[in-house]
Amino acid sequence: MQIQALAKFLNAQVDPTLSEEITGVGTLEEAKASELTFLSNPKYISKLKDAQAAAVLVNPAFTGKSAVPLMVVEDPYLAFAKAIELFHAKPTPPAGIHPTAVLGQEVVLGENVSIGAYVVIGDRVQIGNDVSIHPHCMIYDQAVIGAGSLLHSHAVVRESVQLGQRVILQNGAVIGSDGYGFAPLKDGSFYKILQAGTVVIGDDVEVQAHAAIDRATIGTTKVGQGTKIDNLVQVGHGSTIGKHSLLCALTGIAGSTQIGNHVILAGQAGTTGHLQVGDRVVAAARTGISQSVPPGKQIGGFPEVEHKLWLRMMTQLKNLPQIVQRLRKVEQKLGIR
Amino acid sequence: MQIQALAKFLNAQVDPTLSEEITGVGTLEEAKASELTFLSNPKYISKLKDAQAAAVLVNPAFTGKSAVPLMVVEDPYLAFAKAIELFHAKPTPPAGIHPTAVLGQEVVLGENVSIGAYVVIGDRVQIGNDVSIHPHCMIYDQAVIGAGSLLHSHAVVRESVQLGQRVILQNGAVIGSDGYGFAPLKDGSFYKILQAGTVVIGDDVEVQAHAAIDRATIGTTKVGQGTKIDNLVQVGHGSTIGKHSLLCALTGIAGSTQIGNHVILAGQAGTTGHLQVGDRVVAAARTGISQSVPPGKQIGGFPEVEHKLWLRMMTQLKNLPQIVQRLRKVEQKLGIR
Amino acid sequence: MQIQALAKFLNAQVDPTLSEEITGVGTLEEAKASELTFLSNPKYISKLKDAQAAAVLVNPAFTGKSAVPLMVVEDPYLAFAKAIELFHAKPTPPAGIHPTAVLGQEVVLGENVSIGAYVVIGDRVQIGNDVSIHPHCMIYDQAVIGAGSLLHSHAVVRESVQLGQRVILQNGAVIGSDGYGFAPLKDGSFYKILQAGTVVIGDDVEVQAHAAIDRATIGTTKVGQGTKIDNLVQVGHGSTIGKHSLLCALTGIAGSTQIGNHVILAGQAGTTGHLQVGDRVVAAARTGISQSVPPGKQIGGFPEVEHKLWLRMMTQLKNLPQIVQRLRKVEQKLGIR
Repeated sequence: MQIQALAKFLNAQVDPTLSEEITGVGTLEEAKASELTFLSNPKYISKLKDAQAAAVLVNPAFTGKSAVPLMVVEDPYLAFAKAIELFHAKPTPPAGIHPTAVLGQEVVLGENVSIGAYVVIGDRVQIGNDVSIHPHCMIYDQAVIGAGSLLHSHAVVRESVQLGQRVILQNGAVIGSDGYGFAPLKDGSFYKILQAGTVVIGDDVEVQAHAAIDRATIGTTKVGQGTKIDNLVQVGHGSTIGKHSLLCALTGIAGSTQIGNHVILAGQAGTTGHLQVGDRVVAAARTGISQSVPPGKQIGGFPEVEHKLWLRMMTQLKNLPQIVQRLRKVEQKLGIR
Repeated sequence: MQIQALAKFLNAQVDPTLSEEITGVGTLEEAKASELTFLSNPKYISKLKDAQAAAVLVNPAFTGKSAVPLMVVEDPYLAFAKAIELFHAKPTPPAGIHPTAVLGQEVVLGENVSIGAYVVIGDRVQIGNDVSIHPHCMIYDQAVIGAGSLLHSHAVVRESVQLGQRVILQNGAVIGSDGYGFAPLKDGSFYKILQAGTVVIGDDVEVQAHAAIDRATIGTTKVGQGTKIDNLVQVGHGSTIGKHSLLCALTGIAGSTQIGNHVILAGQAGTTGHLQVGDRVVAAARTGISQSVPPGKQIGGFPEVEHKLWLRMMTQLKNLPQIVQRLRKVEQKLGIR
Repeated sequence: MQIQALAKFLNAQVDPTLSEEITGVGTLEEAKASELTFLSNPKYISKLKDAQAAAVLVNPAFTGKSAVPLMVVEDPYLAFAKAIELFHAKPTPPAGIHPTAVLGQEVVLGENVSIGAYVVIGDRVQIGNDVSIHPHCMIYDQAVIGAGSLLHSHAVVRESVQLGQRVILQNGAVIGSDGYGFAPLKDGSFYKILQAGTVVIGDDVEVQAHAAIDRATIGTTKVGQGTKIDNLVQVGHGSTIGKHSLLCALTGIAGSTQIGNHVILAGQAGTTGHLQVGDRVVAAARTGISQSVPPGKQIGGFPEVEHKLWLRMMTQLKNLPQIVQRLRKVEQKLGIR
């Protein structure tokens, strides 16, 4: 694609005298001389001097030096995302229903549905238009898959679970397996509580590989519109995750937890159950949330504190051996020890 | 179900003048005016005033106010579990063996077995009476599945692994994949050690979604009767988990670890290998157990300490910036700094 | 096998007057009177007095007492690994392609390939000689599986991913699912960035159960030769893991991270993204790496510090309640409080 046409497509400004043919996209380190790259994290500005790219997407505030011609755009990361789509086709699953797929009774199928080999679909399942289900997925009875959804291989949608529209499940994502609910008996054993509830997933949610979202005991585990759940995340039974939130890899949400909208929980974070995390809370990696958190807080540590306080605590913890030495000196001076 | 009949079924006391028809069960927040709810966690007592339910299960010690008629029973949580079963049927897998299931040679099948589509069963596998195996499960050669067990889709039982009776595997649970055993060589590479052992799972164990329990190098990884293993838990090779213990989500048990009976490891806990955790130990969320723990201890932190000490440590850690200020003042007064 | 022949096979020294028949191998605790055992961890030396084994593999530096005849060898652990192979056969998958396997167009198959029931293989996939693929695996279009590789059931190799030679995927390992890449939009929602890159896995790599290695957005996520990735590990998009490194269970590698060669990350460790971990770094369990780490460091804690410092910090943290008491005494003596 010619560079001026590309800039126009991306709503970007570029030196009008340029006329290169852009053949693809690449990272700052790897982009070839005919490829487009981008800079959105200022941390990488020094890499610009060695970059080989034909042009670099930067935002209007960029004032640094660059050996590479600038392509100025309000949101370089988003523009780059759109450029990727120009040069790379999304994989398209084959049309139609593979003859080996096993469909239950009274399954309702939308138009333009792709169902792969060995997919098993239970009774009374509803599948919307333009849904793609890769091989080896299992849809239990009475589940609903909203229009435009994409299920990668080995994804599981359990009985009565509802997925909204354009939901993406990566490989092995499990929606609606039994919650971890057991009543302790007097002899120290446990009585399994029938997990009779379900899960409802909003539109535009993505659940990545091997994440497990448990069905509620009664009622509903909910994931709000646009939320993105990373690999190997657990969401406990009866929890509610709001809209447009991010749960990063290996995070664990206990049961009956309420997470707000626009919340970010970084990797390996966790919550205990029966608490509320307010809208726009940002929890640093491995934050262990043990009490309800008001909206807008930036938190870290376990139990959670303000993120800045936690950073200070950790710095001073590093100095603890020295602090003890200083205390010892003071005690000696005072003849206490 | 009529409320007096329900109370009788649950061995509970209720105002004998009541005669409502109970149509279902619900949480404190969600129960409708004709539904039964329960209160077992005193934390939620304030929710009773807004509850809509027809009756609330409480224990005899309950003295609070309630707009909702009380149904008094020794163990409200257990009674609620039994009430759920009255109003919600357990899903029943279809009877018989699906024609697409692939069975190996000399497979021994009990009576009343349900085997779903595309299940693959190896040679010389033994399957007890009343076992249900959902689609896409894989049972390797010579495995044994005890009577009454239930395997959800994509569960894996590796070669020679033995499951006891009434074992439940949720979706994607893997029992008996290779342990993480590698001998370091002089050139810095690793020699894979053949994992020739197996796994034995006791009666009434439940292993939830995507948990992975590794086979021993030689000998046996063991999980005792009644133990419940949550989503995304790893149990290392050659470890022994006792009876009626709980391993909560994202917990990691290293190899050759011995966990006692009635132990609770809360979410994201972990152990290093080659140690013993005594009976009835309770480890708070994210406890990192690095040494053997005597029976009955309540622990937290990493490395683990008494849970109460850990809570105090964390509180004072929060005060560390102030502690340093106080020390500075002392030093100034003494002319040390 | 006769004990002298076994010693010869293992390049070990044993009392030449012994002539027992060795019938197997076992752990120190479990080995029977006709079995071989080993001692490599000095921690277990006390167990030798109760051992029943016919002989125990020890290294030449061993000077302890043993009721069991010694079999002296340079590397007892490696020798034991080789002894296991003498007495236990590796499971051999059935030869040939199961009639239920679904192969796409232009699939290139090497010689002596084993493909199990219900395996699904996409278009233009290349499969090397002596590859074994267990039932229920899914190989997407254009993937390459190197010679001698072994894929256990439910393993997934996504589109265009390349596996080297002798790669082992345990059950449910997912190579190449979409990276967690989303561009934030002004309205607070996220725009999914097409994950157009891939994953390249080196020779002799093993990826264990339910580990998830994400494909790069553009470019390549790389895992170097000989590296072993444990159960439930996440590797983020665009990261590079070096050669002969160990990533233990439940570890999370964020995106764009570079991990060197011969690195060990113990269980539940994690890294934030966009950093470098040098060669031969050893990170203790649950280390949270937040900045680049020079080669050869031994680290622990979160944020990471030298492992020895971290141990000291944790010891003194335990003493923090006492430290505060000491400070209070000092303040009282000075009349400050």
